[in-house]
Amino acid sequence: MDKKLYAGIDLGGTDIKGGLVEDSGRIIDEERIPTEAGKGPSHVLERMVKIITVLRERNADREVAGAGVGVPGQVLVEEGLLVEAPNLKDWHNIHVADEMQKRLDIPVIVDNDANVAALGEYRYGAGKGCRNMLMVTLGTGVGGGLILNGEVYRGAAGGAGEFGHIVVRRGGAVCTCGRRGCVEAYVGSGGILRILREKLDAGEESLLRDRDTDILTPKDISRAAEQGDRTARRVLAEAGEWLSVGIGSVANLLNIERAVIGGGVSAAGDLILKPLQEALPETALKVSLDSLEVVPAQLGNKAGLAGAASLVIMAGE
Amino acid sequence: MDKKLYAGIDLGGTDIKGGLVEDSGRIIDEERIPTEAGKGPSHVLERMVKIITVLRERNADREVAGAGVGVPGQVLVEEGLLVEAPNLKDWHNIHVADEMQKRLDIPVIVDNDANVAALGEYRYGAGKGCRNMLMVTLGTGVGGGLILNGEVYRGAAGGAGEFGHIVVRRGGAVCTCGRRGCVEAYVGSGGILRILREKLDAGEESLLRDRDTDILTPKDISRAAEQGDRTARRVLAEAGEWLSVGIGSVANLLNIERAVIGGGVSAAGDLILKPLQEALPETALKVSLDSLEVVPAQLGNKAGLAGAASLVIMAGE
Repeated sequence: MDKKLYAGIDLGGTDIKGGLVEDSGRIIDEERIPTEAGKGPSHVLERMVKIITVLRERNADREVAGAGVGVPGQVLVEEGLLVEAPNLKDWHNIHVADEMQKRLDIPVIVDNDANVAALGEYRYGAGKGCRNMLMVTLGTGVGGGLILNGEVYRGAAGGAGEFGHIVVRRGGAVCTCGRRGCVEAYVGSGGILRILREKLDAGEESLLRDRDTDILTPKDISRAAEQGDRTARRVLAEAGEWLSVGIGSVANLLNIERAVIGGGVSAAGDLILKPLQEALPETALKVSLDSLEVVPAQLGNKAGLAGAASLVIMAGE
Repeated sequence: MDKKLYAGIDLGGTDIKGGLVEDSGRIIDEERIPTEAGKGPSHVLERMVKIITVLRERNADREVAGAGVGVPGQVLVEEGLLVEAPNLKDWHNIHVADEMQKRLDIPVIVDNDANVAALGEYRYGAGKGCRNMLMVTLGTGVGGGLILNGEVYRGAAGGAGEFGHIVVRRGGAVCTCGRRGCVEAYVGSGGILRILREKLDAGEESLLRDRDTDILTPKDISRAAEQGDRTARRVLAEAGEWLSVGIGSVANLLNIERAVIGGGVSAAGDLILKPLQEALPETALKVSLDSLEVVPAQLGNKAGLAGAASLVIMAGE
């Protein structure tokens, strides 16, 4: 008989991605549909059920043993409860696992999407072979997920892993969370663009000078940096240095073995990672540094699917 | 038959404290001798064995089931190995557990003293009833110990819990570790005294103005603050605010339920804790704050003995 399959769902504000995953991490089938988040939680729940149903029908010769779901919000995993999802309309205290289980008749486990991505990289990607890691996702926001002693660490109320809101500069730049000086305010897309604007306002030369900074993205800055633009390089270097303050703190506190850097903005690669590495000795103790590798994520946007499926795979181990 | 006893050892640079502890946490007998650290590791190991032997002889009617030892350094707990102890002469890669076990003929478990103090408060003091806590010890240095999911969290190489070296101000004041801007550089005794000197140098009025700041201690500052000295109050408030940056980061990252504040400097009580609490909303997300209580330690310097004994009590549970 063929090996069991596990369904993974990656619920985003725009799309729902679904996949069937083997316990090797191989994704054998995939589907993606728009979230239609504006229609509310019941509608979105139905769509998540639908995507799994379609995948099961297409692979009816193999057993799907359970489904894992990564959602963008605060989750109480044992209760299967999504407490709050700031980017989805009307999601408060939704019993995601129960609702889906009723309709699918297989076990369903729900977790925060940053935790799920961390789990994916841990089992199948850049975190393989270590026991303690931080996953950082650089995008519009800066997400974080922790694997400690080989398991997702969730904290008291499922709120752990908020790496993006570690304060690296007291009283510093305003963050999307309303506070000041968070990692995200320096390394999220908005933060990176603010650093660029500050440099342009200060009169620094740049290929980006005549572009409208309101529609620029970190990708444009990377591209300019690759073309030799020194200001663009310095912007990304500064972001990397601020990131090192956060990662150094995590390393000192948790003595992790890997910091895995993923997300769209991490495509800048060494333009961010090298300055980050070089600044780490200023923020991490020797004992912390000795254990630590900072590495790029390997799975890209597949980490969500593989990690979600891992929730059910690990529950059965 | 009487309940079993567990020996606890608190190895310090000056004294070795030893005690016999019931699993309720009650210390039924205690002893203290000078460490004589200058005579090297073998000598100190003998003295730790001796203190336990004396305690056992005095309580020969009851069984001592094992011994736990808290040491001021980096420990690999499973190997019973003290890797490094910066404040003890010549301690590098010492097999503390094996050496003591051979002589005592009972199981011996060794751990870092900050972890041990955290464990003591967790089982018997201010951490009772929670699952995830940070213990902060304010003294000359700023120590940290983590309990996560009900267990001591040690990290990859036993180096976890270095809360005192989280960077709260990039490029800030020089720390004893040689780097800049660590929590310890603002909240350790030396840091607090530096903040005072800066205020006096800036011409602020204070009862402490004519005192020699080289021999002042944080206790003198507390005393002046209690007498209404506004500069002294502001010094302690500033230390509390910097502490809140570190604790806020830990809360965001780990969603802990308690931050337990102990150590000599914490005797300043609300003079530090109140400004800390008031500043926390600037550094901790709402979800992190909702779970978090900041509380004073309860066991004082007994946390080390009770926590050391807990190492063996928990190993048997």
